[in-house]
Amino acid sequence: MEQIDDQQIKADDRRYVLHSWSKQKAIHPSIIKKAEGIFFWDDSGKKFYDMSAQLVYLNVGHNHPKLMEEFKHIGDIPFASPGFATASTAELARKIIEVAPKNMAKVFFANGGADSNDHAIKIARMVTGRYKIFSRYRSYHGATFGAGNLSGENRRFAVEPGLPGFIKFETPHLYHEKIDFESEEAASDFYLDRLEHQILYEGPESIAAIFMETIPGSNGVLIPPKGYMEGVRALCTKYGILMICDEVMSGFGRTGKMFAVDHFNLEPDMMTFAKGVTCGYNPLGGVIVSSSIADYFDDHVLLTGLTYSGHTVSTQIGCATLDIYKNEHLVEHAAEMGHVLAERLEQLMRFASVGEVRHLGLFAAVELVKDKQTKEPLMGYGKDYGKDTEGLMKKFVGLLMEQGFYTYSHDSHVMIAPPLIISEQQIHEAMDLFELALIKFEKELFSDHPVVAK
Amino acid sequence: MEQIDDQQIKADDRRYVLHSWSKQKAIHPSIIKKAEGIFFWDDSGKKFYDMSAQLVYLNVGHNHPKLMEEFKHIGDIPFASPGFATASTAELARKIIEVAPKNMAKVFFANGGADSNDHAIKIARMVTGRYKIFSRYRSYHGATFGAGNLSGENRRFAVEPGLPGFIKFETPHLYHEKIDFESEEAASDFYLDRLEHQILYEGPESIAAIFMETIPGSNGVLIPPKGYMEGVRALCTKYGILMICDEVMSGFGRTGKMFAVDHFNLEPDMMTFAKGVTCGYNPLGGVIVSSSIADYFDDHVLLTGLTYSGHTVSTQIGCATLDIYKNEHLVEHAAEMGHVLAERLEQLMRFASVGEVRHLGLFAAVELVKDKQTKEPLMGYGKDYGKDTEGLMKKFVGLLMEQGFYTYSHDSHVMIAPPLIISEQQIHEAMDLFELALIKFEKELFSDHPVVAK
Repeated sequence: MEQIDDQQIKADDRRYVLHSWSKQKAIHPSIIKKAEGIFFWDDSGKKFYDMSAQLVYLNVGHNHPKLMEEFKHIGDIPFASPGFATASTAELARKIIEVAPKNMAKVFFANGGADSNDHAIKIARMVTGRYKIFSRYRSYHGATFGAGNLSGENRRFAVEPGLPGFIKFETPHLYHEKIDFESEEAASDFYLDRLEHQILYEGPESIAAIFMETIPGSNGVLIPPKGYMEGVRALCTKYGILMICDEVMSGFGRTGKMFAVDHFNLEPDMMTFAKGVTCGYNPLGGVIVSSSIADYFDDHVLLTGLTYSGHTVSTQIGCATLDIYKNEHLVEHAAEMGHVLAERLEQLMRFASVGEVRHLGLFAAVELVKDKQTKEPLMGYGKDYGKDTEGLMKKFVGLLMEQGFYTYSHDSHVMIAPPLIISEQQIHEAMDLFELALIKFEKELFSDHPVVAK
Repeated sequence: MEQIDDQQIKADDRRYVLHSWSKQKAIHPSIIKKAEGIFFWDDSGKKFYDMSAQLVYLNVGHNHPKLMEEFKHIGDIPFASPGFATASTAELARKIIEVAPKNMAKVFFANGGADSNDHAIKIARMVTGRYKIFSRYRSYHGATFGAGNLSGENRRFAVEPGLPGFIKFETPHLYHEKIDFESEEAASDFYLDRLEHQILYEGPESIAAIFMETIPGSNGVLIPPKGYMEGVRALCTKYGILMICDEVMSGFGRTGKMFAVDHFNLEPDMMTFAKGVTCGYNPLGGVIVSSSIADYFDDHVLLTGLTYSGHTVSTQIGCATLDIYKNEHLVEHAAEMGHVLAERLEQLMRFASVGEVRHLGLFAAVELVKDKQTKEPLMGYGKDYGKDTEGLMKKFVGLLMEQGFYTYSHDSHVMIAPPLIISEQQIHEAMDLFELALIKFEKELFSDHPVVAK
């Protein structure tokens, strides 16, 4: 690598690089100069608590010594394209199946979350011979055309006109529901009844799969009400529809279990993964399929593929990552730390601008509102990406950054999803910073609105 | 990594891994035990000339010392997600723009060829406000839903029902054309006239882009007739349609120029790339956009993105790879070696089963026929992926493998696309093996058919 100073890196970045999801003139990227564990330092010397684990993938934290060491061993396994059997690919597939739900049998490797979802859709259609795909509003599955069409929010509009046969249904979101259900179970009954009707209206014999983030991530960590996931599984079984869970964010310990489906004792027919499998140290994603789907492809052609399926380096880094989860007991630690975070999050409910906090393990979101009684969101739905004219969410995230609390927002919720290695003390330190930002926010920007104490 | 013997690797592979484009029971993957330059050795100890550079990506050859060394420096640049400016991402973007056509200005990074094509489609629609996308029969662009819908061969059928507004036109393929044109220019006139009519029939004001592999790769290295590419450029300019060239295979020296468009003095509006940018040492792809497209996104949101856009490791490996092209003069070398290969390929025309040889630089295909006069292909179109009932192509590739000539076929043509570092002597050695396989093939399997000497 050339030795180039920060100013020149920034100048080259501005001149030559197109950044995702942005007006290029509106962004001023900083440089990460150093990173360690849950912290990083930018080029101004400022230290940040990385409270979104970058984009919810850095589960083992920055600069993990075991992974940095593993890069020194690249080449120990000769590189090979997908037509070969490769030590790291075979080992990682086995390790994933060992921690996946019992019905899971084989892994198809891809590059990231989005393309993994594209391949899963294709597999579902091949196996069932059906073409319709159900997925949910308030979901995000990626930006390729398959994943984009699955997505139930405004980032999907860039792949329209959309694919035929992609049908949307609603994600339970009780906080904004008009009906005041007497219990979570009653809410689940209501949503499942609506879903079954929609299945019947669309014709079950044409529906290949119901695709859902086990817990929608960027759309606000929407925890399913009790009984809901099990109910969807039952409907899928009843109508011969495949249940596909997108575990790209929620997988690999994020929620305090290896996969989020483990909270519901679920056996989906397929699961897609990415992020946590390598913690972003190298690009990797994939599709885990059940034994009956695996068997189907013994004698039927799997009509999909890619050059880097089971890439030697990515799977080698994946193996080392899975060893870290195991040896450092990260999933169990995430569950414990989840309780600490939960307590701090619930305390935020005393703030006038906090509408709801949602959390499972170290997967959490804080939803901000203009008014606690009307539950009017701080920002209207779908106003991200340059349309947030009022800019209150942007300003709040700016205040967090000022405090050294690094994360991102979507709609009116702020993601909190730190590396799973975070300590109890670090959670308290970070959440103190979050509260300082909230206090400043309510004092400086929120004064026109009625302050409602809980 | 665990130390596992070859038998266990194969057993785990069979048990846990889903391989692309295959009936799983029909394949018996071997293991690459050692690899160096243009050679690799499998677990039976057999040595192969890697004459397809794995899947046409290993331009610098196996186990390049500079790239293996670069992995030792992973971590020198702190990892960062796409919201940051990163030294390796900025440097690689600059290096790509420096070798791209003059009108090119910025790079959007993705993970591989397929998703890069998906993002390019989205960019074209954003910039033009139009939705129709033209692409060609006898093309392959990848297996995600966007790239799959672009593709003009049977691997597309796995993404059907397809995206609205995706229109196909024909790739010039003079060898199988009914009309006997008096010159390449006359053929180009004919095809361009047909294309212009199709543009008018579809309504130019609704067409965002014409998407083409500069030289279709897996579909048989179809070299465009003289004047054709320039003519498509002129039509695009005339109707305000963006010209997008897929250089995933043909880019980075494969054809003896940095990009295949350089043979035609072309300035497309966008180019997609992957494979050669890192030579497969790490997953990476992207979209190169013209200055006017780059400018558009100064003040408009680029409504696409991915977690690993500009991945630190992938771009660092990309920088080292581009240095190798430059320092080892690989593109110039590929052009020279292309002449050696061309001569050997033309000599194959004396064989009864060789219908046509097509080549540019080190990008070549040999098309096999049952009958030289009728030009009947050895295998009917679209019979790949388990449908080749006669199995003649499979048997021929088997004979090549026996000889130690590693490559793959698609339809009735065999790919020849070795690492660009190949020497003159190695080309002769490998092509001797190819001829031995052809002789055996014609003797043992071809005896029922009339043998036509040239």
